[in-house]
Amino acid sequence: MDTKTLLTESEMPTHWYNVQADLPRPAEPPLHPGTHQPAGPDDLSPIFPMGLIAQEMSQERYIEIPDEVQDIYRIWRPTSLYRAHRLEKALGTPAKIYFKYEGTSPAGSHKPNTAVPQAYYNKQEGIKRITTETGAGQWGSAMAMACSFMDIECKVYMVGISYDQKPYRKSLMETWGAEVLSSPTNTTNSGRAILAQDPNSPGSLGIAISEAVEEAAGRDDTNYSLGSVLNHVLMHQSVIGQEVRTQMEKLDAYPDILVGCVGGGSSFGGIAFPFIKDKLDGKDIRFIAVEPEACPTITRGKYTYDFGDTGEMTPLVKMHTLGHTFVPPPIHAGGLRYHGMAPLISLLVDLELIEAKAVHQNAVFRSAITLARTEGMISAPEPAHALAVAIDEALKCKETGEAKNILFLLCGHGNFDMSSYDAYLSGSLEDYSLPDELIERNLASVPQF
Amino acid sequence: MDTKTLLTESEMPTHWYNVQADLPRPAEPPLHPGTHQPAGPDDLSPIFPMGLIAQEMSQERYIEIPDEVQDIYRIWRPTSLYRAHRLEKALGTPAKIYFKYEGTSPAGSHKPNTAVPQAYYNKQEGIKRITTETGAGQWGSAMAMACSFMDIECKVYMVGISYDQKPYRKSLMETWGAEVLSSPTNTTNSGRAILAQDPNSPGSLGIAISEAVEEAAGRDDTNYSLGSVLNHVLMHQSVIGQEVRTQMEKLDAYPDILVGCVGGGSSFGGIAFPFIKDKLDGKDIRFIAVEPEACPTITRGKYTYDFGDTGEMTPLVKMHTLGHTFVPPPIHAGGLRYHGMAPLISLLVDLELIEAKAVHQNAVFRSAITLARTEGMISAPEPAHALAVAIDEALKCKETGEAKNILFLLCGHGNFDMSSYDAYLSGSLEDYSLPDELIERNLASVPQF
Repeated sequence: MDTKTLLTESEMPTHWYNVQADLPRPAEPPLHPGTHQPAGPDDLSPIFPMGLIAQEMSQERYIEIPDEVQDIYRIWRPTSLYRAHRLEKALGTPAKIYFKYEGTSPAGSHKPNTAVPQAYYNKQEGIKRITTETGAGQWGSAMAMACSFMDIECKVYMVGISYDQKPYRKSLMETWGAEVLSSPTNTTNSGRAILAQDPNSPGSLGIAISEAVEEAAGRDDTNYSLGSVLNHVLMHQSVIGQEVRTQMEKLDAYPDILVGCVGGGSSFGGIAFPFIKDKLDGKDIRFIAVEPEACPTITRGKYTYDFGDTGEMTPLVKMHTLGHTFVPPPIHAGGLRYHGMAPLISLLVDLELIEAKAVHQNAVFRSAITLARTEGMISAPEPAHALAVAIDEALKCKETGEAKNILFLLCGHGNFDMSSYDAYLSGSLEDYSLPDELIERNLASVPQF
Repeated sequence: MDTKTLLTESEMPTHWYNVQADLPRPAEPPLHPGTHQPAGPDDLSPIFPMGLIAQEMSQERYIEIPDEVQDIYRIWRPTSLYRAHRLEKALGTPAKIYFKYEGTSPAGSHKPNTAVPQAYYNKQEGIKRITTETGAGQWGSAMAMACSFMDIECKVYMVGISYDQKPYRKSLMETWGAEVLSSPTNTTNSGRAILAQDPNSPGSLGIAISEAVEEAAGRDDTNYSLGSVLNHVLMHQSVIGQEVRTQMEKLDAYPDILVGCVGGGSSFGGIAFPFIKDKLDGKDIRFIAVEPEACPTITRGKYTYDFGDTGEMTPLVKMHTLGHTFVPPPIHAGGLRYHGMAPLISLLVDLELIEAKAVHQNAVFRSAITLARTEGMISAPEPAHALAVAIDEALKCKETGEAKNILFLLCGHGNFDMSSYDAYLSGSLEDYSLPDELIERNLASVPQF
C-alpha cells in the first residue's frame, strides 16, 4: 500500500519559488503609514535585514537557498506526502485524498521553514536580538528554535490569553532559550496604551505585533520577525509545494483540488503557489483557502489598504482585512485569529485564482477526530480547517462518483492543543457566527485616503 | 553536511529479529505464580493471543512482519538516523555522535512499533477489547492509536498521579477513542485492595498492571497488552536497530558505544539487540543501559525471579528487580519508573554483554536543554537519560582525543513533558538518592523458593 511518498535529500528544492514572477499583474506596494507613499527599503530597514527586504521586493522567479539554511532544513525536510487510504475507506469515497505533513519538524509545524532563513539573514547582518509576536505559540516556538541555531537572542510577545492558556508552548520557547512576555506588557508605548484602556486586556496578534515592532524599531542591535503575511515569508514556505510537485509526479498524479487553511496565509501560500502557474496556463485545478467563521477575513472582509497591527505602526498593505481593530472570538485555532491576509493571497483571490471558504470549529474538530482515528495524526486546530473542507469535497465525490485527487496541507500537529480536543469531546466548543454590524464596525477602522 | 541518513521504504526490515537465537544460553522460562512451574502457552492464553505467545517463546532468529503491520509502520517508518554535528561542536569533542529518532510517530515515541502488531494479532484471533496500563502515557497513547487502526476497544489503567499531572496524555488517548481510568480504581479486586490500605494511593505501574491483567483474565472477549519487558515486545522493537545497522553501513561507520535508556527495556532492546551478535563474534562495541538513580533496577537490584506486578498476578520472571513492592520516587521520566527489567536485558547484563549506569534527573534535563539548543529536538525525559551518558562519553573523548562513534536512541519527544522542563528551568527538580535500607526492604518482597 502506498502509504506515503518519500523524497531523498538530493530531491529537495535548492531555490525558493517566488510566485510574483508568474502573476499577470504585480502586487501593489506597501505604503508608509505616515506619508501613504510606497515604502522603500529604507522604510523597512529599521526592523528587517536588507537580505530579507530584497526578497520581499524581488520579482525574480527563483532565489537560492543558502547552504547553512539547507543544512538546518535537513533536520526535518524533506517531509512526507501521505495517501490517506484509511480516511478514504472510512468516508466511503472514490476520491483519492493526499496530504503533506509538516508536523515532524522539532517545533511541530511548517513555521521553521521561514524562521530559519529569517534568523540566518539577520545573523549575516550582525543582528544580536530578534523580537516577534506569537498567538497560540507555533510561530514563537519556531523562531525561538531558529534563533538558538543562530546564537541570536529571541524575545517573544505572546498574546496574553494564550500565555495563560498554553503554558507549555511558553515552556517550549524557554527550552530553546527565548524570553517570553505576556502581551500587552507595560514595557512598550503600544502595550501601555492598550492597558490604559483595559487593564485586563487579553491581548491580540495585532497588539503583540505593535509591541514587537516598537521594540525592534527602537534598538540598533534588534530586528523584528514576522511568521506570515509578508512576501518573503510565503516564498520561504514554497519548499512545501515544490516538494509536493515532485512527490505527485512520482505518483503520476495531479491534484484536482488543493486545500489549505489561512490565517496570515503562509502555509497556504507555501503549498499552493508552486501550482499557480499551471492554472494560469489553463490547467484544471481548484485552490480552496479555508478560514474560520469566527475570523472570515477573505469571505467577509474587504480588499483594501490596512495596517498589519492594532497600533498602526506597520506599513499599510493591500489585503483582505476585517479592520485592524478587529479582535476575533476565542476559537482554538489561535494561528488563524488575524484580522488581515497575506497581500499575495489577497491578490490571487482578487484574480479569481483562489476561492475561500469559512468553517465552524465544531466541524473542524469532528474532522480532526476522524483523521486521528484513521491515519493516526493529531492535527493542529488550524490545518484541521483544511481537512474539514477536504473531507467535504471527498463526500461530494461520493455522491457524484468522481475519483478526484484532493490534496490538503496538514501543516502542524496538535500536541499542544489537547485542551481544545477536550473541549470538543466534552461538547463545550462554541461556534461563533459574527453579526454583520460587528464586521461593519471594524471595517470602519480601515484608513480612508 | 550529513545531517541525517534516510532509508527508502524498500530498505525497511521485513522481519523482526529475535536475539534469543544468537545467545550463548537461553533465557530462563517464566514460572506460574501459583505452582512455580514453567508457564506454558495455556497459562498465558487467558490474556494473550496465541500469535504473540508463539513469538514470546520462539527461538527462531527471524519472524516475518505481516503486510498489514508494515502498512501501518510506513506511517512513520523508516525513521531518520541523525549525526549531531551541532552538539559535537558545542561540546568541543572529537567524538562523532549519532542518534536514531523515534519521536516522529503520531504517538511520539517508539511504542507504536509494538502496539500495532499486538493489536494486529489480537484482531486476528477475534479479540474485541484490550486492557493495558500506562505510566506517563507514552504506551497508553500508542496502544490507543493501534487499537483505533484495528477497530478494537482500548481501556487504559493510567497511574493515578500521572492521570492528574498529565491530563493532555489522557486527552490524546481519548482522541484515539480509548477509555482512560485513574488507577487504582474501585472496579477491580487489585484496585480495591490497594485503596483499602491507602484511599489516596497515587498508583504505580505495578498496580495498574494488576488491574489491567485482572480485567483481561476475567473476560473472554478481552486481552491484555504490555508495552515493555516481554520478549515479543523487545523483538517488535528490533526494527529500530535493524534500520540503524543499514544506516550506519551507508555511512561506512560502526558504533563504538551504543547507549539507550531502560525502564522495562523495550527501546534499549530495540536498538541494541541487532548489534549483540557482533559483540559475541568479538567486535569491540560497548552497550550502556541507562536508568534513573531513583529507580536503579540493574545497578542496585537483584537478578532473580519476581512478579511483574504489585498484585502478584503475573507469572514470575527472572530479571533484575528492586522487589515488586517498590514504588519509585516521583521523577519525571514516568516510563522508567518500573521495579523490574526485561528478562532478556537482565540476561545480557548477567552475560556481561551490557553495562548499566544510573543518572540523576537534573543531569538528564541539563543534557536535554543542550540537545534542544543545538539539534532542535525536545527529548522526552526518558531518552534524555541516554543522552546524558552519550554526552559524558563524548566529553571523555574530548579529554583523551579519541574520535569514537557514539550512538544513542532518542526514543520519543517531550511535547507532553514540558512541565518537567519548567521544573528544571526553575531549579525545583529534586535528585533522589535511595538509602540502602529502602532497597533492602523492598528486595525482601521477592519470593523465596
